[in-house]
Amino acid sequence: MLGCWRAAAAISAGRGAGCARGRFTMAKSKFEYVRDFEADDTCLPNCWIVVRLDGRNFHRFAEQHEFKKPNDERALCLMTKCAQTVMQELEDITIAYGQSDEYSFVFKKKSKWFKRRASKFMTHVVSQFASSYVFYWKDYFKDQQLLYPPGFDGRIVLYPSNQNLKDYLSWRQADCHINNLYNTVFWMLVQRSGLTPVQAQDRLQGTLAGDKNEILFSEFNINYNNEPLMYRKGTVLIWQKVNEVMTKKIKLPKETEEKEVEVTRTRTKVVPLYCDIIGDQFWEEYPEILAEDS
Amino acid sequence: MLGCWRAAAAISAGRGAGCARGRFTMAKSKFEYVRDFEADDTCLPNCWIVVRLDGRNFHRFAEQHEFKKPNDERALCLMTKCAQTVMQELEDITIAYGQSDEYSFVFKKKSKWFKRRASKFMTHVVSQFASSYVFYWKDYFKDQQLLYPPGFDGRIVLYPSNQNLKDYLSWRQADCHINNLYNTVFWMLVQRSGLTPVQAQDRLQGTLAGDKNEILFSEFNINYNNEPLMYRKGTVLIWQKVNEVMTKKIKLPKETEEKEVEVTRTRTKVVPLYCDIIGDQFWEEYPEILAEDS
Amino acid sequence: MLGCWRAAAAISAGRGAGCARGRFTMAKSKFEYVRDFEADDTCLPNCWIVVRLDGRNFHRFAEQHEFKKPNDERALCLMTKCAQTVMQELEDITIAYGQSDEYSFVFKKKSKWFKRRASKFMTHVVSQFASSYVFYWKDYFKDQQLLYPPGFDGRIVLYPSNQNLKDYLSWRQADCHINNLYNTVFWMLVQRSGLTPVQAQDRLQGTLAGDKNEILFSEFNINYNNEPLMYRKGTVLIWQKVNEVMTKKIKLPKETEEKEVEVTRTRTKVVPLYCDIIGDQFWEEYPEILAEDS
Amino acid sequence: MLGCWRAAAAISAGRGAGCARGRFTMAKSKFEYVRDFEADDTCLPNCWIVVRLDGRNFHRFAEQHEFKKPNDERALCLMTKCAQTVMQELEDITIAYGQSDEYSFVFKKKSKWFKRRASKFMTHVVSQFASSYVFYWKDYFKDQQLLYPPGFDGRIVLYPSNQNLKDYLSWRQADCHINNLYNTVFWMLVQRSGLTPVQAQDRLQGTLAGDKNEILFSEFNINYNNEPLMYRKGTVLIWQKVNEVMTKKIKLPKETEEKEVEVTRTRTKVVPLYCDIIGDQFWEEYPEILAEDS
Repeated sequence: MLGCWRAAAAISAGRGAGCARGRFTMAKSKFEYVRDFEADDTCLPNCWIVVRLDGRNFHRFAEQHEFKKPNDERALCLMTKCAQTVMQELEDITIAYGQSDEYSFVFKKKSKWFKRRASKFMTHVVSQFASSYVFYWKDYFKDQQLLYPPGFDGRIVLYPSNQNLKDYLSWRQADCHINNLYNTVFWMLVQRSGLTPVQAQDRLQGTLAGDKNEILFSEFNINYNNEPLMYRKGTVLIWQKVNEVMTKKIKLPKETEEKEVEVTRTRTKVVPLYCDIIGDQFWEEYPEILAEDS
Repeated sequence: MLGCWRAAAAISAGRGAGCARGRFTMAKSKFEYVRDFEADDTCLPNCWIVVRLDGRNFHRFAEQHEFKKPNDERALCLMTKCAQTVMQELEDITIAYGQSDEYSFVFKKKSKWFKRRASKFMTHVVSQFASSYVFYWKDYFKDQQLLYPPGFDGRIVLYPSNQNLKDYLSWRQADCHINNLYNTVFWMLVQRSGLTPVQAQDRLQGTLAGDKNEILFSEFNINYNNEPLMYRKGTVLIWQKVNEVMTKKIKLPKETEEKEVEVTRTRTKVVPLYCDIIGDQFWEEYPEILAEDS
Repeated sequence: MLGCWRAAAAISAGRGAGCARGRFTMAKSKFEYVRDFEADDTCLPNCWIVVRLDGRNFHRFAEQHEFKKPNDERALCLMTKCAQTVMQELEDITIAYGQSDEYSFVFKKKSKWFKRRASKFMTHVVSQFASSYVFYWKDYFKDQQLLYPPGFDGRIVLYPSNQNLKDYLSWRQADCHINNLYNTVFWMLVQRSGLTPVQAQDRLQGTLAGDKNEILFSEFNINYNNEPLMYRKGTVLIWQKVNEVMTKKIKLPKETEEKEVEVTRTRTKVVPLYCDIIGDQFWEEYPEILAEDS
Repeated sequence: MLGCWRAAAAISAGRGAGCARGRFTMAKSKFEYVRDFEADDTCLPNCWIVVRLDGRNFHRFAEQHEFKKPNDERALCLMTKCAQTVMQELEDITIAYGQSDEYSFVFKKKSKWFKRRASKFMTHVVSQFASSYVFYWKDYFKDQQLLYPPGFDGRIVLYPSNQNLKDYLSWRQADCHINNLYNTVFWMLVQRSGLTPVQAQDRLQGTLAGDKNEILFSEFNINYNNEPLMYRKGTVLIWQKVNEVMTKKIKLPKETEEKEVEVTRTRTKVVPLYCDIIGDQFWEEYPEILAEDS
């Protein structure tokens, strides 16, 4: 296919140029019409942009990597580490919320990152998360080898009002609570009472939240309310100003010796919180998350 | 927030249930309206679905990981390993094409994977690729440490006709050629002739393909045509039936000893090719790629 | 609100200009950001674009305007007149198909009309159709007054392949047949046999096409096959070259008298056909409808 | 094509049924897959939905129907009559604004009309408007015949916040003002001072609003501020409760004669206003337009 080139080079640059140019540069411009088939996927302005990511086949993944039931702290902390990386590497994420094998990232209403193209938001989030998951695995799972590279899926949703956005996050946190309460009792019944999974499922069929609390309390002496907040509430990631105190050596004028002084620097960091975000208190405490210029 | 539970558990399951249930299950159903904000992104049926992925800031990534210029074989082979993983883990990919830090995946016209939802195609491709990149890094880069988890972006494009699809792939291969020829001369001028990048750029300004071939031939005694096909053509991944000969121990009836026999098994594997896909020959040789039932 | 102008005009153009300009031109540019909220709705290239239009509440409209049952020739011919107007006034419609109170318009695969924006296709079709319906009403309904302006709804669908498009049109024609056969028998039972609509419906419940033909033949001596093609097949509109013979007065050189001569002019007109479009014959007879450059 | 039917009817319903059924009902279900090609175009919930409609080629249309310059009262009132019809016939329109040959319709944030499908909103608006335009033409243009059925195009835009919506309407009203001031001076220069259109255009090149006011005032003794509000502000349509006093004949008990009594009935009507909608006053006066349950 490139056969004409050798001869061309041997004889004259001029003719060779014509040959090769005709073959590729012109070919490329002839094919370039295919770019017009790409659709515009710009997100509506002035809406919150939420990207939610879920582990692909994580039920199986958890089995194979011996995740502790009902909650594996290592796995949850790794998820959060990845989410922090996403917030730091990408632009305009104001808050993130994670539980189980999912994480939601909220981009600012006014964000103009990548011209608000939906595909950019989705693919940058999931790819950064996925590569981080493998990269930081060993920091959390130590000797437990990662057996294969996991997949994640993502979706994008727009929310026009602050109330819609808060309701979205409340929906995810209510989901976290319902699942975690169920799972906590379920695995107690299996691990401590020796029920089979089917038996445990039958036992819990039709029970209300109060029933489940009662089982935990009377049968296992567990006050669900004392279970770790991270399990019950999931993880909220926000940006916070943090004062860092550093020691610096300075040579003051008129002195000959260097002197150690303490310098306080304010940095903005991604910080995890484990708290209720359904009520108003959280939003009143951190008004900057939903701030208009956000 | 969960304060009512403990008391509830202490007094009666019934009232406790009411309390907790009111707080969460009902809360969840109250919030669930937010699901209606998710838009339907189903791909038009009977079109080829192409997902193209690009490394994010790979110019910088290549510098920091000391990629060889103009082509780093390790990096290209790692990209291909990741693409193979994507083809094996996901459904309905009939062909993939990669060059430099990009890879395109073509899903079958009739694919019904995830109901043809665009976000599913995009996020599964890029997340599987990204996690594989970190997972397989050490197999290709050995002692060269991966410094941070890389990001990738993705986009999705539909092509209604076979000709449109072939033109898309031709466009990418023509792009590969044009860039690789330029880069090959550019780095020769820099690495061997000692030009600065700016000088090399000036030297190449306005040159045609033939001029560049001539420079390679007369100044560096390089026949571009003899450069590795993988660099000049990029990598094509297709599914191929492969015969695998295995040795198996069998105990035949009426014999006491086990006996080793050779067994040939036909498997379908993802195979890399380094060839022209602009002309007709490739498509005539592999008609199954575009086959109607594909 | 415009109060500053009078004074401004009375005193000095300069100050007045500042005032009014500040109020409106600057106001306009301040508000113009709202244009960015309009989404791009470009249709995928290289696909057939079909716009189908339906009468809104035409059941009631037909009652109020005393349409004949099961088919009102005036109403069907008016629909076709409107569809012809649409084809003549808009660009790139290669074929249209109508039945009952619906009409489908097929825009050429390669059409670039209004940059292929879906909203343009839909709104131009339905508005031209709707205004034509009122405009031409009296040509078909004579003394029957139009009581109110009717509404129509429209939708747009893309078809990537010729087969998909033919199947779409076949779907509409099969629908026409099934409905028309049913309606023909139904109204015979009501109008001639004196059944109530509910009785007629019960009688037809579960009958197959053959049963319905048999009822028509044995009870009403009607051979359905002899019913007008327009009712059974709907109306197909295509572009055809038509020779028009005109008489022109010409004064030949060297003659003193004008002389009448016949001149044949070829024009392209929208022509109605009443024929099967499910089988191959139609498409073989009119290959230009699906022609590649179409 | 339907040949089999006659014979079938003559011989046996059973076989005939098989024949016809095989041909059409089965045909239809075989073709029905084409329905899956229709894309979902649901509008994002909790956003204002604006449909704006423009006359197609109305420059030419105005010439041919001898519209008065710069404003034809008949044409503007006909537009408003059509817009009122649209508001009455369609659901959930809370406000409309018109000027020149355009009209914008605002559907309520919470509207669930036709499941919020964009194509339904657009096509119902433009088709109802277009048919009304022809239907009501003679009420406004009397002896001036309508020469041909006009076309309109439409587009749909979503606005997430009240401020965005108000800015959209302000944008249209600022546009109305700028155009009307220009046109008023332009046509004075042409009609009264005898300038050619090109001369008038040159004269106005680069002038500010104040300059135009000054020309009107000093050369034509016109105070722009006294021009009709409908021309300067456009037309706002809103729903208002109107008390209608009707006379009714009632026979009271124990009386033999009927007696006429006045009855006041409250109806909700579409009412035109000609006022500023850029400032806050209008929105404070009519808070129900943007009301949350709207």
